[in-house]
Amino acid sequence: MIKITLPDGSVRDYNKGTSAMDVAKSISEGLARKVLAASINGEVWDASRAINEDASLKLLTWDDADAKATFRHSTAHLMAEAVQSIYPNVKFWVGPAVDSGFYYDMDLGNDVLTEEGLHVVEKKMVELAKKNSTFQRKEISKADAVQYFTEKGDEYKLDLLSNLEDGSITLYTQGDFTDLCRGPHIPNTSFIKAIKLNSVSGAFWKGDEKNKQLTRVYGISFPNQKELDEHILMLEEAKKRDHRKLGKELGIYTMDDDIGQGLVLWMPNGTVIIEELEKLAKETENAAGYKRVVTPHIAKENLYLTSGHLPYYADSMYPPMELDGTKYYLKAMNCPHHHKIFDAEPKSYKDLPYRIAEYGTCYRYEQSGELFGLMRVRCLHMNDAHIYCSKEQFAQEFKAVNDMYLKYFKIFGIEKYVMRLSLHDPAKLGEKYVNEPELWLETEELVRSVLIENNIPYVEVKGEGAFYGPKIDVQIWSVIGREFTLATNQVDFAQSRSFKLSFTNKDNEPEIPLIIHRAPLGTHERFIGFLLEHYAGKLPTWLAPLQVKILPISDKFMEYGEAVLQKLKTAGVRAEIDDRNEKIGKKIRDTEIAKVPYMLVFGEKEIADNAVAVRKQGKGDQGVVNLDEFIKNITHEILNRE
Amino acid sequence: MIKITLPDGSVRDYNKGTSAMDVAKSISEGLARKVLAASINGEVWDASRAINEDASLKLLTWDDADAKATFRHSTAHLMAEAVQSIYPNVKFWVGPAVDSGFYYDMDLGNDVLTEEGLHVVEKKMVELAKKNSTFQRKEISKADAVQYFTEKGDEYKLDLLSNLEDGSITLYTQGDFTDLCRGPHIPNTSFIKAIKLNSVSGAFWKGDEKNKQLTRVYGISFPNQKELDEHILMLEEAKKRDHRKLGKELGIYTMDDDIGQGLVLWMPNGTVIIEELEKLAKETENAAGYKRVVTPHIAKENLYLTSGHLPYYADSMYPPMELDGTKYYLKAMNCPHHHKIFDAEPKSYKDLPYRIAEYGTCYRYEQSGELFGLMRVRCLHMNDAHIYCSKEQFAQEFKAVNDMYLKYFKIFGIEKYVMRLSLHDPAKLGEKYVNEPELWLETEELVRSVLIENNIPYVEVKGEGAFYGPKIDVQIWSVIGREFTLATNQVDFAQSRSFKLSFTNKDNEPEIPLIIHRAPLGTHERFIGFLLEHYAGKLPTWLAPLQVKILPISDKFMEYGEAVLQKLKTAGVRAEIDDRNEKIGKKIRDTEIAKVPYMLVFGEKEIADNAVAVRKQGKGDQGVVNLDEFIKNITHEILNRE
Repeated sequence: MIKITLPDGSVRDYNKGTSAMDVAKSISEGLARKVLAASINGEVWDASRAINEDASLKLLTWDDADAKATFRHSTAHLMAEAVQSIYPNVKFWVGPAVDSGFYYDMDLGNDVLTEEGLHVVEKKMVELAKKNSTFQRKEISKADAVQYFTEKGDEYKLDLLSNLEDGSITLYTQGDFTDLCRGPHIPNTSFIKAIKLNSVSGAFWKGDEKNKQLTRVYGISFPNQKELDEHILMLEEAKKRDHRKLGKELGIYTMDDDIGQGLVLWMPNGTVIIEELEKLAKETENAAGYKRVVTPHIAKENLYLTSGHLPYYADSMYPPMELDGTKYYLKAMNCPHHHKIFDAEPKSYKDLPYRIAEYGTCYRYEQSGELFGLMRVRCLHMNDAHIYCSKEQFAQEFKAVNDMYLKYFKIFGIEKYVMRLSLHDPAKLGEKYVNEPELWLETEELVRSVLIENNIPYVEVKGEGAFYGPKIDVQIWSVIGREFTLATNQVDFAQSRSFKLSFTNKDNEPEIPLIIHRAPLGTHERFIGFLLEHYAGKLPTWLAPLQVKILPISDKFMEYGEAVLQKLKTAGVRAEIDDRNEKIGKKIRDTEIAKVPYMLVFGEKEIADNAVAVRKQGKGDQGVVNLDEFIKNITHEILNRE
Repeated sequence: MIKITLPDGSVRDYNKGTSAMDVAKSISEGLARKVLAASINGEVWDASRAINEDASLKLLTWDDADAKATFRHSTAHLMAEAVQSIYPNVKFWVGPAVDSGFYYDMDLGNDVLTEEGLHVVEKKMVELAKKNSTFQRKEISKADAVQYFTEKGDEYKLDLLSNLEDGSITLYTQGDFTDLCRGPHIPNTSFIKAIKLNSVSGAFWKGDEKNKQLTRVYGISFPNQKELDEHILMLEEAKKRDHRKLGKELGIYTMDDDIGQGLVLWMPNGTVIIEELEKLAKETENAAGYKRVVTPHIAKENLYLTSGHLPYYADSMYPPMELDGTKYYLKAMNCPHHHKIFDAEPKSYKDLPYRIAEYGTCYRYEQSGELFGLMRVRCLHMNDAHIYCSKEQFAQEFKAVNDMYLKYFKIFGIEKYVMRLSLHDPAKLGEKYVNEPELWLETEELVRSVLIENNIPYVEVKGEGAFYGPKIDVQIWSVIGREFTLATNQVDFAQSRSFKLSFTNKDNEPEIPLIIHRAPLGTHERFIGFLLEHYAGKLPTWLAPLQVKILPISDKFMEYGEAVLQKLKTAGVRAEIDDRNEKIGKKIRDTEIAKVPYMLVFGEKEIADNAVAVRKQGKGDQGVVNLDEFIKNITHEILNRE
């Protein structure tokens, strides 16, 4: 008998060789029908794989990211089976799961797979899936594997084999298809109920353009048709809401070859959004007791040697500027500069928590192939702050930071979010993780209890913490269901040691502070990119670059228009008159396209009543409203960020 | 006879060989007594030098910068005469006028001049000045000059002579002292009524530390004792107001060796000042129709080749970061980035004037010896903006910019200022100046008339314009009379050509815009340095990092203190409680030293009346005031930046 520990801490006895699926069935048949894979001692396994020793076990269903990846990778094998049945001479390279689904790279020889051909493959996959073929795992010696693929004449798998160690090699078979594969896989093909192959394109073998071009097919799959339909709808909507398209149409940002790739020039409309976000951050942080600082964008090499960014992070940094025997680097993070400000004046316990904030601009040299609109850039304006506190103050500070995230989510209508809590791995203390076992456990438990007490949805991941402490990655979903990694929230024991930071505690002894790194609004670049998609460019009034467009129905009424404009400006509302010699219908249409929240239309009748006919973006005619009443309403709406 | 043209345009006939002094006497004996030198055809001459051809002439008195420099340089000769009378073996190197007065470098052989010795020299100078010795100019051939100094055994003057051309060499003699000197000088020594020798120090010959060390004596002089007394007072006051001392005491800024020289870390208190200044700039610019932009701090080499910064300005720039075959530079100016934003979308005459503003951070590699506190730094936050307009719009735009300067001067109590209008030199068109003779004359005249119409004090300087247009340097004086160069205001014809900027004019033709570069508040670094001196650290309430300190006379009254704090915070006032267990007298003294504008003191009596006893920085007790009344008053004061 072996002992299986379940996530709730309960321990059950099973026969040696039992599988996760057996365990699931012993709990409930309904549960078993949902199980796609299992986490055994933190490693993802096939649900059907035999367990021969005591283990902790977590059953993985569609809601688990690891199960989704297993499901998608299994669909790649299903696709390979379908392709092989149509093109028997095909040879396969690799077929991983990716964020957007899965792909498989293949050598079709003289055959060509067209967009139309994809439909045929898709149909075949649906047919094969229904056969309910089991994914069978087989451990094999390297010699046997080499013999198998040599006989098959598969130079691609032989190439993969050459980098694998004997004893770690497995084959997976479903139906007529066998693949060299580390696994794991879902129990059988019948789980795959909905499939969409998205694209076929060329991809150089091993990504090297000197190599042969293979054929890459991208696809996605779901356990039911409804989710696939929703996904396709989401993609279509995301295309319309593409931040690069909206960014150009709405005059938000531009890029220029003479400035450089990934370096955003924020145009006037984008700068209004930036300033409104910074105003929000400053108000929020001011109320939460933060002080603001301003630091340079460069520093000498020595700073980054102390912080540990050099040499480990050098690949992501711009190269140094070397002058008078000194190397200067553009900063990739604000923390070392902030530590220097903490250290500029002696601190006592009375000065703590010491919270300093800066919308600091950092530079990171992302590979040019990875640059993408505002989402992946080289110049980042970060909603950064560092909180220096004692161990006793930590829980309260960390809770306050989390509350700030929740406050922002509410303002921006972000309803779905998850915090991914990355922990240390005790086996790697002093190696991958700073060797403070008690501090790790203590802060991890503090972080965990703040998350639980506040009913914040979170997942735990072992062995993914930062070097210096537990880390929370915040994932949010836009209103159309696309996932964004927004920001991180980190606990740090190590940097205060490297920078020799300390404060005098109540016993008049020097003590090392804990540091919280936090950036709830992430970077302007990524957050504004997210907002453009989230709101489809129809920003809420407080964020809109232009809040009100004034549309006189004829030139005769320009004087009243000017008076309205002045009143709005005095009230701090961003407004403009459309003084073009155009029909009112066209003016309204153009303003709709420009996504301005409010239009004020007026002629003789409205002027006589000191009123305006109000049209609201996306909601149409709101009727005639007294001008002062309108101003009162809109300033209230702006002030409360509704 | 020759014709002498005076500044008012009048022309008078004089005998050939007449001098500026003769002309002065012919106008008024009183005027002649004030004449120190003369400007002949734009060149500074001795007032006594013979004029042999038609010329334009301006008499220079103490109020002219060139006369001041001549006066100070003549004092250097007087000092040399005095030193020579005491140390007969002395040899002299050079003795120029400088911003702070004058100096002379000398080789005293085995003699040593101590601080005490300076007093002896000073006394001797006063004695010699009273002798009313004339400064006599003598043209001499190079051969004769070499013979003279060879006989004298003066290797220093022989070294100078080796670099001079025959025909341009003059000697000046006053009393027993003769010097190789280009001149000019004041008429005689009796003008020098007040002298102060400031310091004696070592200075390597030709500034090269491998050379012999000479003795350098610094001094200053005035035409009357009163001005010297005022000057000494100003220096003492300036020492107390030193922005580096105040900057540290008040927690405004710090620097750090690991970050780099000249790179300012703005601490929380300094950042409050920065944010208030930016708020002021944004309000002012917003009301004036500017839009805001945000641009990266780096760009590719090509941008600076187009703008002309490379290679001409390369010495003042940080060296490039070279990566993937591309050179990136830190920006030393914001203009090229702004031009790219102008150019990102097509412009028509309806879009002009297009005004874009940014508190842009620039990096300039000043030599380490020239770095000085906040006054000379390597990272500059600049109150920058660029206005793109048509020729017809120029005058109005330029006037609006000047009005903005005046508005700021009023806010900061800057009563003395001068605009230095630098013009082109027609002889150097197409060489030092862009070859647009009409545009030069036209814009110079436009600029001049705006200055005259607005009664703005200004001086004109020929041949000091920027390459691309006339330039105004704005000089301001702090309340203790120290001069600061604050900012420039430039007209630009050239860059819109280099960047191929254009707009579609009313005739539907492409037209090149004029550009105004302007930065009324200069850089945060220099302006905050100025403000610290100007206000002696006692910043006006709206700028003060901490505006109100709440001082309960005993711990018993902390609850009321907290209520006062909350009310102030809600009203947007920056306030803190002094909760230390200290006597009220000490609390008041400490708050005075911290230069907080207001202190609110209270005990049982004030609390009963819902009041506070108000103390104002530098003004003492203001009596007991109802709390709401106080809040009303202070918010009014802050809002109006009183």
